[in-house]
Amino acid sequence: MEIPSQYLDRAVGQFAQLPGIGHKTAMRLVLHLLKRDKQDVDAFADSLHELVANVRYCRVCHNVCDGDICTICATAARDHATICVVESIQDVMAIEATQQYNGVYHVLGGVISPMDGIGPQDLEIQSLVDRIAAGGIKEVILALSPTMEGDTTDFYIFRKLADYRDTAITTIARGVAQNDQLHYTDEATLGRSILDRKPFTTKY
Amino acid sequence: MEIPSQYLDRAVGQFAQLPGIGHKTAMRLVLHLLKRDKQDVDAFADSLHELVANVRYCRVCHNVCDGDICTICATAARDHATICVVESIQDVMAIEATQQYNGVYHVLGGVISPMDGIGPQDLEIQSLVDRIAAGGIKEVILALSPTMEGDTTDFYIFRKLADYRDTAITTIARGVAQNDQLHYTDEATLGRSILDRKPFTTKY
Repeated sequence: MEIPSQYLDRAVGQFAQLPGIGHKTAMRLVLHLLKRDKQDVDAFADSLHELVANVRYCRVCHNVCDGDICTICATAARDHATICVVESIQDVMAIEATQQYNGVYHVLGGVISPMDGIGPQDLEIQSLVDRIAAGGIKEVILALSPTMEGDTTDFYIFRKLADYRDTAITTIARGVAQNDQLHYTDEATLGRSILDRKPFTTKY
Repeated sequence: MEIPSQYLDRAVGQFAQLPGIGHKTAMRLVLHLLKRDKQDVDAFADSLHELVANVRYCRVCHNVCDGDICTICATAARDHATICVVESIQDVMAIEATQQYNGVYHVLGGVISPMDGIGPQDLEIQSLVDRIAAGGIKEVILALSPTMEGDTTDFYIFRKLADYRDTAITTIARGVAQNDQLHYTDEATLGRSILDRKPFTTKY
């Protein structure tokens, strides 16, 4: 499909580089922008310029933020002795949305994945060890995805933190998902949920 | 879900305004951009600035172009006595991709749709009439979508051009789609394809 304008072509090419957006969708998005007011599109473009110019990462937990330290690390009311280790910023937002956690975070920036050439040195693992080594951390909660890469990273961190005996290392519970049909749950998950069974309680 | 950076928040909000992109997808796209090099994202933003600053519409057919007249209208080898009337720029590109048409186009910029408050005066219909009135046009092919709005617009244009008896008015063929299963074709299309049957030929 020949595009009759180099400016159109270039904008479509840029959109098509985004994950999950093909050439046709990119064209639809750009033609939508062409119908919008010029200042709307300029505001869109400016928001991207400002994003990459201004966004920063928290010095402590590597969450995204506007200043030196993120709002979570800066909140004195939170439990700074509990660190939840997550893969990405999205995971911080997902856990925050549950309103079940009052500790602080540590964003690794990925998981160990030899297939993708990502090793421990590419992740914020050393800075996690440094936080524990500085003392005062009671618990580290490993909240990585239950995939092979996530499990590998869990194990790597577990070994790295083995010397700090004052710090408990826990992982988030794995089992059948809330509201899932039991007979649709895969065998690995269902098997694990039986092995990890716990005393019945009515308190939640 | 609270977003920990106003710059992130703003960029996500801008993406979420695009058609078919919800808040979660917008977040995924912006976090993808954050992982890219700063100059890549700046190039993305610049492509949008340049798009709205520089893109123009052909003075003759209202197709998108970089100059005063689009490349199709400027090509002497094309049949300038045949005008194909389409709804949008995408339709021009779709018909060009078939490589079955050598005439020129007229982009209406939409179809008559009272529900959306779009009347004939909002479309490039008068400029189409002016092109026919200027003389030398042998055929006008109506290639609008076979929807109620498209049909209404077809009929409106047909009435507007009724006085120009030297210009034939045709519509693109409607019938069963190539490679479709006949028993899955809807009744209206199948019925139409029987009414509009034509002598069998092996020449294509």
